[in-house]
Amino acid sequence: MPEFELLPVTAAGTRFVELAEKHAADFAPRVPEADRTATFQTQNLDEMKASGFTSAPVPVEFGGLGVRSVHDLALGMNRLGRTDPSTAIAINMHLSIVWAADFLHRLAKGTDNAAQTEAMAGLLQQMASGLIAAASNTEPGTTMGWPMTEATKVDEGWSLSGRKTFGTLSPAADLVLVSCRTARGDGTYESGFAIVPGGAPGMTFLDDWDTLGMRSSGSNGAVYDGCLLPESSMMSGASWGDSGGVMGVSLGAVTNLGLIAAFVGIAEAARDLAIDLARTRTKQPSGAPVAHRYGIQHAVAEMEADLATCRAHLSWAGRLLDERVANVAPQDLNIQDLYAIQGQFQCSKLVVNRKAIDVVDKALQISGGSGYFSSSPLSRMYRDVRAGPFMQPYSPNEVYEYIGQVALGLPPAIQT
Amino acid sequence: MPEFELLPVTAAGTRFVELAEKHAADFAPRVPEADRTATFQTQNLDEMKASGFTSAPVPVEFGGLGVRSVHDLALGMNRLGRTDPSTAIAINMHLSIVWAADFLHRLAKGTDNAAQTEAMAGLLQQMASGLIAAASNTEPGTTMGWPMTEATKVDEGWSLSGRKTFGTLSPAADLVLVSCRTARGDGTYESGFAIVPGGAPGMTFLDDWDTLGMRSSGSNGAVYDGCLLPESSMMSGASWGDSGGVMGVSLGAVTNLGLIAAFVGIAEAARDLAIDLARTRTKQPSGAPVAHRYGIQHAVAEMEADLATCRAHLSWAGRLLDERVANVAPQDLNIQDLYAIQGQFQCSKLVVNRKAIDVVDKALQISGGSGYFSSSPLSRMYRDVRAGPFMQPYSPNEVYEYIGQVALGLPPAIQT
Amino acid sequence: MPEFELLPVTAAGTRFVELAEKHAADFAPRVPEADRTATFQTQNLDEMKASGFTSAPVPVEFGGLGVRSVHDLALGMNRLGRTDPSTAIAINMHLSIVWAADFLHRLAKGTDNAAQTEAMAGLLQQMASGLIAAASNTEPGTTMGWPMTEATKVDEGWSLSGRKTFGTLSPAADLVLVSCRTARGDGTYESGFAIVPGGAPGMTFLDDWDTLGMRSSGSNGAVYDGCLLPESSMMSGASWGDSGGVMGVSLGAVTNLGLIAAFVGIAEAARDLAIDLARTRTKQPSGAPVAHRYGIQHAVAEMEADLATCRAHLSWAGRLLDERVANVAPQDLNIQDLYAIQGQFQCSKLVVNRKAIDVVDKALQISGGSGYFSSSPLSRMYRDVRAGPFMQPYSPNEVYEYIGQVALGLPPAIQT
Amino acid sequence: MPEFELLPVTAAGTRFVELAEKHAADFAPRVPEADRTATFQTQNLDEMKASGFTSAPVPVEFGGLGVRSVHDLALGMNRLGRTDPSTAIAINMHLSIVWAADFLHRLAKGTDNAAQTEAMAGLLQQMASGLIAAASNTEPGTTMGWPMTEATKVDEGWSLSGRKTFGTLSPAADLVLVSCRTARGDGTYESGFAIVPGGAPGMTFLDDWDTLGMRSSGSNGAVYDGCLLPESSMMSGASWGDSGGVMGVSLGAVTNLGLIAAFVGIAEAARDLAIDLARTRTKQPSGAPVAHRYGIQHAVAEMEADLATCRAHLSWAGRLLDERVANVAPQDLNIQDLYAIQGQFQCSKLVVNRKAIDVVDKALQISGGSGYFSSSPLSRMYRDVRAGPFMQPYSPNEVYEYIGQVALGLPPAIQT
Repeated sequence: MPEFELLPVTAAGTRFVELAEKHAADFAPRVPEADRTATFQTQNLDEMKASGFTSAPVPVEFGGLGVRSVHDLALGMNRLGRTDPSTAIAINMHLSIVWAADFLHRLAKGTDNAAQTEAMAGLLQQMASGLIAAASNTEPGTTMGWPMTEATKVDEGWSLSGRKTFGTLSPAADLVLVSCRTARGDGTYESGFAIVPGGAPGMTFLDDWDTLGMRSSGSNGAVYDGCLLPESSMMSGASWGDSGGVMGVSLGAVTNLGLIAAFVGIAEAARDLAIDLARTRTKQPSGAPVAHRYGIQHAVAEMEADLATCRAHLSWAGRLLDERVANVAPQDLNIQDLYAIQGQFQCSKLVVNRKAIDVVDKALQISGGSGYFSSSPLSRMYRDVRAGPFMQPYSPNEVYEYIGQVALGLPPAIQT
Repeated sequence: MPEFELLPVTAAGTRFVELAEKHAADFAPRVPEADRTATFQTQNLDEMKASGFTSAPVPVEFGGLGVRSVHDLALGMNRLGRTDPSTAIAINMHLSIVWAADFLHRLAKGTDNAAQTEAMAGLLQQMASGLIAAASNTEPGTTMGWPMTEATKVDEGWSLSGRKTFGTLSPAADLVLVSCRTARGDGTYESGFAIVPGGAPGMTFLDDWDTLGMRSSGSNGAVYDGCLLPESSMMSGASWGDSGGVMGVSLGAVTNLGLIAAFVGIAEAARDLAIDLARTRTKQPSGAPVAHRYGIQHAVAEMEADLATCRAHLSWAGRLLDERVANVAPQDLNIQDLYAIQGQFQCSKLVVNRKAIDVVDKALQISGGSGYFSSSPLSRMYRDVRAGPFMQPYSPNEVYEYIGQVALGLPPAIQT
Repeated sequence: MPEFELLPVTAAGTRFVELAEKHAADFAPRVPEADRTATFQTQNLDEMKASGFTSAPVPVEFGGLGVRSVHDLALGMNRLGRTDPSTAIAINMHLSIVWAADFLHRLAKGTDNAAQTEAMAGLLQQMASGLIAAASNTEPGTTMGWPMTEATKVDEGWSLSGRKTFGTLSPAADLVLVSCRTARGDGTYESGFAIVPGGAPGMTFLDDWDTLGMRSSGSNGAVYDGCLLPESSMMSGASWGDSGGVMGVSLGAVTNLGLIAAFVGIAEAARDLAIDLARTRTKQPSGAPVAHRYGIQHAVAEMEADLATCRAHLSWAGRLLDERVANVAPQDLNIQDLYAIQGQFQCSKLVVNRKAIDVVDKALQISGGSGYFSSSPLSRMYRDVRAGPFMQPYSPNEVYEYIGQVALGLPPAIQT
Repeated sequence: MPEFELLPVTAAGTRFVELAEKHAADFAPRVPEADRTATFQTQNLDEMKASGFTSAPVPVEFGGLGVRSVHDLALGMNRLGRTDPSTAIAINMHLSIVWAADFLHRLAKGTDNAAQTEAMAGLLQQMASGLIAAASNTEPGTTMGWPMTEATKVDEGWSLSGRKTFGTLSPAADLVLVSCRTARGDGTYESGFAIVPGGAPGMTFLDDWDTLGMRSSGSNGAVYDGCLLPESSMMSGASWGDSGGVMGVSLGAVTNLGLIAAFVGIAEAARDLAIDLARTRTKQPSGAPVAHRYGIQHAVAEMEADLATCRAHLSWAGRLLDERVANVAPQDLNIQDLYAIQGQFQCSKLVVNRKAIDVVDKALQISGGSGYFSSSPLSRMYRDVRAGPFMQPYSPNEVYEYIGQVALGLPPAIQT
C-alpha cells in the first residue's frame, strides 16, 4: 500500500473505499485475459452489485451507502484503477449518474418540487436494488453539446434516431441516457436526454470496442434507428448547444473526478511495479540491485514527483468539488461560479491525465525493457493510461480555450 | 483576491494570515526602491514585531499567537510573497526558528527534561518580546551537513572561525545559529550549531548581497574570525555529515514550506497582473481586449494549470507536514518516517519552485513585452522567483538522489 | 571554443565570422558596465563600421564582404551573442536591412527594373560607406501588420505621426524604416514603410529603454509628430494588414535567424561557464570537483541536450533559409511556399528561444547559487536570454496559430 | 511526401533511399496483420535482398551500392519507418553490420593488414550475395559491456553458453555476432564477439517476441547451450567491461542513427495522418473541418515544432557522424574524440526518441479518439514509437551519466 495514498474524508466514503479495495483485489486475476480479448467483465458488475458498491451514492434512507463526497467516490475509482482501470471507468459512469439522481432529488426537495422528489426517490430506490445506468453522449461528426441524434415527436411519444460512440458500460445498462435534440418547429432545437431502457427495440449496441487500451470497458458504439420511447422519456428544455446548466456542469466535473482518480490508480500501480523491479533486479558486474544506480534513482525521483503532482491535484480537486458542489444545496449553486470551478477542475484533469501518462512512461523506462513485453502489466498500463486525455468534456483540443476564457472572466464559448 | 487561493486551517493561523495580508499591503509601495537599491527593509521588520507577527509560533501562554500549523505559517509567507518576497523569505527564516524553539520546548516537556523545558520557555518568551533569530548554514566550498566553519574549545568557551554565505535576515538578527563543527580529538568531528549574539566581536556581516533577485532579503555573507562564545553556546552532538536528526529533518521541511509558499505568492501576483493586462489592453485593428484572442487564452490556460499545480502541491505538502510532523508529539517522530516525508515534501518543493517560475514566465509572455521593462513588477518577479530552486537543503543538483533513494527504500546518502 | 559549434558554409561568411569573433572579444570587457547603466555602445558600432563588419551583406562589387548566406550572417550574430548579445541584436537589425537592400537589388535586376536597380545599387554603396539603417515596426496598441502610425499627404510630400516601441539600434541609425499606413481616400488604408533620415525634425527618440535584459541594445521608443518627409520617402502599396509579401515574409525569417543565433550564443557561453565552474570548483568533504557528482553530471547532460537542440535547429533553419530563400532568385520566390517556409522557421524560432532559456537556467542551477549574484555573467545572461520569445513577428502568443494554419494548408490569418 | 523531409546527400544514398521508398510502399499492406500476429516478415527480407537493398553499404567493387554515408543509410530507415518500423529496425541491424564490415575492410587496408583485408573483402562479397547478419548483445542480468555469456576453450574450438534477449532479426540471420566473454585464466576476462552461423547446434531462438510494439521485428531471445564453434569464430581482445574501442563506439552511434531515423519516420507518418484527419473531418454545428479550430491549430503547431526538432537533430547527427566518423579513415579515428562525438550523438538520440513519442501522442490527441482504435495506424504507431528509448547503448537510465561525463571532460564510466 502506498504510504502517501489519498484517504477518504467521510465515514461512508471509508466503507466505500474498503469495498473498492476488495473488489480491486478480486478483479485483478481476470484483467490480463479481459485485456487480451477486449471483453466486458459482467462478473465484476455482478460482484459490485452484490456488495452494494454500485449503489454507493444512494442515500442510506433509500438503501444505499450514502456516499455524497465526490472526493471519496473518486478514491474508490482510484483503488479499482490500480488493478482494473477498464472496470473503474465503466462503473464510474454508473456511479456518476446515481450521484446525479441524488443531486436531482435534493434539488427537487430544496425547491419544493414534490413530483420530482418522488420520481427521483423512486429512481434512487431502483438504483439501490441494482439498476445500472449509463450515458451516451459522444457522437461522431458533431461537437459535445450539439447532438445530431434526434428525437422526433410521434404518436407513441418519441422516435429516436442517431449514432453514438464511446458508450462506456452501455451494453450492461438497464437504462441509457442518450443526449439528443428535438426540433422546436421554428428551425431551432432543444437539447436534452432521452431515457432509453436497455434492450429497447431500435437500439443496437455494436461490438466495436477494439482499442489500444481500456479494452474491457465495453465502450461500444450504438445505433438508434427509430427507437420508440414513451412521452415521459425526454428530459429536455435547454437550447441546442447549451453547456448543460448547473446540473450538467456539476456532473461534467464529478464524472471526470472519478476518471482521473482511476488514471492516478494506474500510475500508482506502475510506480509500485517499477520500484519493486528496481529493488529486486540485480545486474552484473556489481551484482547489486539496479536501485543502487544513480540513473535509476534519478528516474525514480522524476516518477515520484509526477506521482505526487497527480495525488496533490486529485486531493485538491476532490476537496474543491466537495466544498463547492457536493456539499452545497443544489438550488444554491450558481452557474457562473460553476464555470469557474469547472475551469479550475479542468486544470487538474489536464495535469493529472498527462502526469499519469508520464509516470507509466517512466516506469517503463525503469523496467529497462522488461515492461515492454505483453506479459508485463506495465505494457497494459501504458495503453490504458493514454485514454485519459480523450475524456469529455474538454479534451486537450478544447480545454485550453475553456480554462483561458473563464480565467479571463469571459463566458466559456469554445469554438465550433 | 484570487478565487482559489489557499485558506488557513486553524483559528490562530487565520489571525496570522490576516496580519500577513495587512503587512503585505503596507510593504508593497517600498518594494521597487528596495529592489533597485538592494536594501534590507528594517522598517518592515519593526512593523512585523509591533503587530505580533514575528512571534506567531510562540505559544499563547508565552505571549505569542500560538500558530503551530506549518500550513498556516506558510500561508502567511504566501501572502507576503505576493508583494514583497524578499521580506517573506527573510522573516520565514526567523519564524522557522521560533517554530523550532516551540518544537524543542514540546520535546523537552514530552521527555520530562525540566532544564531544557525551562530554557526553551525562556527563549520563547524572549521571542515573544521581539527577539529575532537567523541561521547561517550555507558555506562556500563544502556540502550541506559538512560545515568547515569550526568552533575550537578555548578557556572562555568556544572560538568560532569560518565563512558563510546566504545569511538571510542575519544582519537584523539578535542571535544567529551558525552551523559548525568541533573536533573530537580523534580526528573526527561533531557538528552542531553555535548560538552567536548579534554584534558579537569577531562576527562580521559583509554587505555583499547584490543579486539577480530577492535583493532586499539581506542575505549577506558573514565572516567568523575567532569569535568568542560562552561554553553554553554550542548545540552539538551529531557526527559531522549527519542529516540533522529528527529536529533537523523536520525543520528542513518546515522552513522550505514557507519558502515555496512565498514563491507561489509571486506566481499568484504575476498571474493576476497578466490577467488584468489581457482584460484591459486593447489592440487594433479589432480594438478588442487581447483577452479575446485565442493565443492569449491558451497561454492563460497554461498559466492557470501551472498555478493550480503550485497551489495543489502547497496544500498537499502543508497538510502532510501538519499531520505527520507539526501535530505529532516531537518525541514520537521517527527518523525513517521523516526521511520518507522529507522525500515526499521535496517532490512538492521541486515542482512548485519550477512551476512558479513557469507561471511568471508565462505572465511575461502574455504581457507582450511590457513586462520586460524594469518599471513592470513582472520583471522583478521574474528575477525573484528564480531564487526558489537554490534553496537548501537539496537543490535540483542533489534532490533527485534524495527522493530516489528514499522512494527505493535506501538510506538517503547524497554523493559528496 | 565549443567543439561542436556551427561553422560558416561560405568563404565570405568565414571571413565575416572571424570578424565577429574578434569584435566579440573586444566588446566583452565593456559589457558589465553597459548592462548596469543600460547604455548603447556607440564605440562598438564604430569598430564594426571600421572593420567592414557592418557592410557584410553588401556585394563585393559595391564594396562589401558579399555575405549572402543568411546561415553565415546568423553565425556572426551567434559569436557576438556569446559575449555581447545587446550589440548582436542591435547590429542584426542593420545587417538584415542591408541584406534586404541586396535582395531588392537582385529582384530589380532580375525583373529588368533599371531605375530600382540603380537606386538599390546606390543604397548599397552608401551602406558600404558606413550608412546604418534601422527599422521601427512595433507599435503599442496595434497588431503587427496593422500600423496606426500614419503618413498623410502634404504639399512637401508626407507628414508622419505616430508612436513606436522596441526601436532597436534606431538611436544610431542614419535612416529608419518606419512601418506606417496611408489613407486611400475610400476609408481603407495602404501600409508600407516611410524612410526617415536620422535626426529628421518631428522624430524624437525617447530614452526609455530600461529593461530586464538586453539593456545596451538601445531599443528606445520613438515619437513621430508631423515629421515631414519628401515624396520619395514612402514604400507603399500593400493593403493594411497584409503580411508583407515575398519581401516581407523573407525578411521576417532572415532577421529572426540572426536573433535566435544570438540567443544560442548566450546559451553556449552560459554552458561553458557552468562546465568550467563544475570542473574547477571543489567541495568538502571529498574535496573533489563537483563535476564528479552524479547530480551535476545529470544536469550537465540535460543542458547539453538542450544546447544540441539549439544548434541542430539553428543549423537546420539556416540551411533551409539559404536553400529556399537566399539562394533563390528573388523573382522566383512564391508567397505560398514562403508561408510554409516561415511556418517551418517559426518552429525553430520557438524551440530555440525556449531551449536557450533552459540552457541558461540549467547553468544557473549548476552554479549552485554563485550565478545568482550580479557579479556573475550568468545573472546577466538569464535576463538577456529571456528577450528571445518577444521577438516579432509571431511571439508565442501568436505563433501557434501561424504554424498550425500553414501546416494545415490554410492561409495564415492570425486572430486580431 | 512531406515538404521538409530530409534528403540524401550522396548519389549512392539517393538510389538507396529510392529503394527504401519503394519497399516501404510494398510492405505497408502487410503491416496490420504482422502487427496483430507478431510475425517476422520473411517476404520483406526476400524483397530487400532481391533489390540489392540489403547490400547497400557493400562497396561497388564487391557488388554493393557503395553507401558509406550513415546519414543516407539512416534516411532509408526513415522511409521504411513511415510504414513498417519493425522491418526498419530489423534490417538496420544487418545494414549496420555490413557498414562495420566495410569499416574493418578500410581499416585493414589503411593499416596494411593483408589477411584481414582479404577476409573482410570475402565477407563483403558474401554480403553482396545476400548473407544476412545480426548481433546479439543484450543480456538479462548484466550491464552492456559485461556479457555473462561465455565462450570456453574446447578441443573443437569454442563452446558458447548463455542467454540473450532483444535479438532483432536474428531468426533470419545467416550469422549472428554474439557478445561474450572468455576467461583469461587469471580470474579476469576478455570480451568480444562469437560469430555463430544460423542454425548452429546448441543455438536456439525462442519464439518469445510478444511485446507492446515493434511486433514483427523478430527480436526473439536466444539460448546458447554448449554451442560448438570453430577456433576462428572469436573476435576478442578487449578487457571485460571495455567500451568497445574505436570500432565499437563508432558502430554504437551508427546503428542508433538508423534507429532514430526509423522513429522519425513513425512520427512523420503520424503527423501526416493527423493533418489529413483534421483537414477532412468536419463537425457540427459549423460543419467546417476541425482544421479551422484554434485548439486543433495549436496542437498541430506543437506537433510541427516537435517534428522539426526530430528532423533537425537527425540531420545534425547524420552530418556529424558522416563528417567525423564515416568520412574519416578508420585508422585516423581517436577514441577520445569518439567519446565526445558519441556524447553529442546521444543528445540527439535522447531528444529524437522522446520527441518522436510526443509527435505520435499529439497526433492521437488531434484524432479526437479515433486514433485510439486498433484499426487506426495511430494506435500501432503509439506502441511502436515507445521502443525508441530502450535502444542500447545508453537508455535514459544511463545516458545522462555518459553525456555529462564526456561534456565535463571525464572518461565515460557509467555506474555499474
